[in-house]
Amino acid sequence: MLPLIIKSASLSVSSSISPTHYPSQKNHERIMNKKNSVFIATSLDGYIADKKGGMDWLHSIPNPNNDDMGYVEFIKEIDALIMGRKTFETVLGFDVEWPYNQAVFVLSNKLKEIPDTHKDKAFLIKGTLIEILDQIHEKGLNRLYVDGGTTIRSFLKEDLIDEMVLTTIPILLGGGSSLFGELPNELKFELIGAKTYANQITQNHYRRKR
Amino acid sequence: MLPLIIKSASLSVSSSISPTHYPSQKNHERIMNKKNSVFIATSLDGYIADKKGGMDWLHSIPNPNNDDMGYVEFIKEIDALIMGRKTFETVLGFDVEWPYNQAVFVLSNKLKEIPDTHKDKAFLIKGTLIEILDQIHEKGLNRLYVDGGTTIRSFLKEDLIDEMVLTTIPILLGGGSSLFGELPNELKFELIGAKTYANQITQNHYRRKR
Repeated sequence: MLPLIIKSASLSVSSSISPTHYPSQKNHERIMNKKNSVFIATSLDGYIADKKGGMDWLHSIPNPNNDDMGYVEFIKEIDALIMGRKTFETVLGFDVEWPYNQAVFVLSNKLKEIPDTHKDKAFLIKGTLIEILDQIHEKGLNRLYVDGGTTIRSFLKEDLIDEMVLTTIPILLGGGSSLFGELPNELKFELIGAKTYANQITQNHYRRKR
Repeated sequence: MLPLIIKSASLSVSSSISPTHYPSQKNHERIMNKKNSVFIATSLDGYIADKKGGMDWLHSIPNPNNDDMGYVEFIKEIDALIMGRKTFETVLGFDVEWPYNQAVFVLSNKLKEIPDTHKDKAFLIKGTLIEILDQIHEKGLNRLYVDGGTTIRSFLKEDLIDEMVLTTIPILLGGGSSLFGELPNELKFELIGAKTYANQITQNHYRRKR
């Protein structure tokens, strides 16, 4: 079955482009490509940041070959990113060049504007998640990387995540920011891949089972 | 390094059996065998029971060959079990024969006595975790299966778990009883095995890295 969000989007997209009830082949391809993905690492106890907000533990396993653990392959299939203000500001604070080639949509009620340095790279976006997705899809951006704990939890609450690549570091942090939160309903997933990196880090690829 | 609990236990055991500071070969083997293990299944979001306390979701993945997922191999290496009252009463309530051949030690401040039907199978035990472990080790029972959320969390809080076999069912429950809780310190583990069952269920074997 197609994801709910894709089905509801297909109606509005097809009616705006084609007068018939049948989407065109091109449109059909776009619809099929719509996907909201998560790619994130957690501790064994499901935290994405430790008690002090730190992420050093992510590098507690030696990675002598600098294996990207599937990130490059993942990100090259992504049209745009959606993240919250906190994650955006965290990435801005990293002592590296801006890491994304794709547009980054920043969800925030607090942030008034994107810093001048990043106005061509990141864009404030407001509305319900469905409205936000509609706005992004209208730009032809369909394969979305949803990042940051708060944003991922909001998407999961509305059952808007289609796949998750979860990387597990073998450490119990015992507190911090949890990736997952309360959900109104159970969400079943299918395991579509399982890998081990550096002999220590497991990575499981899940697809929402609908 | 040897686990702390093993080192401290080795002093009392060796002094009670041998007058020298060097444990005998036989004693040394016993000491080396001391191990507190966890073998448990969780949802993707780390729950061991759903919001209503239910565990039906554990069987949400078809298991046509009735694969025991390593349980038989695990349990045959176990000398005794330690569990809380709640887990004990849950197992008593299962519509099956008593499933353990080994002694079951039940941690409880509330339970006054073990039901007559199980007085030769299960035993109330009281004290701090270190005292409890000493009592059990004195009986020559060294390889212990620590079960139940509350008991596992207590053991982890005192860094008394040596290995964990964690089986992950691909479902987000969105609430329920969490396996893991707050810890005073981070605990690092080593991945010593990773398997997939029924093409859907991952099982990772971790050993405490000390």
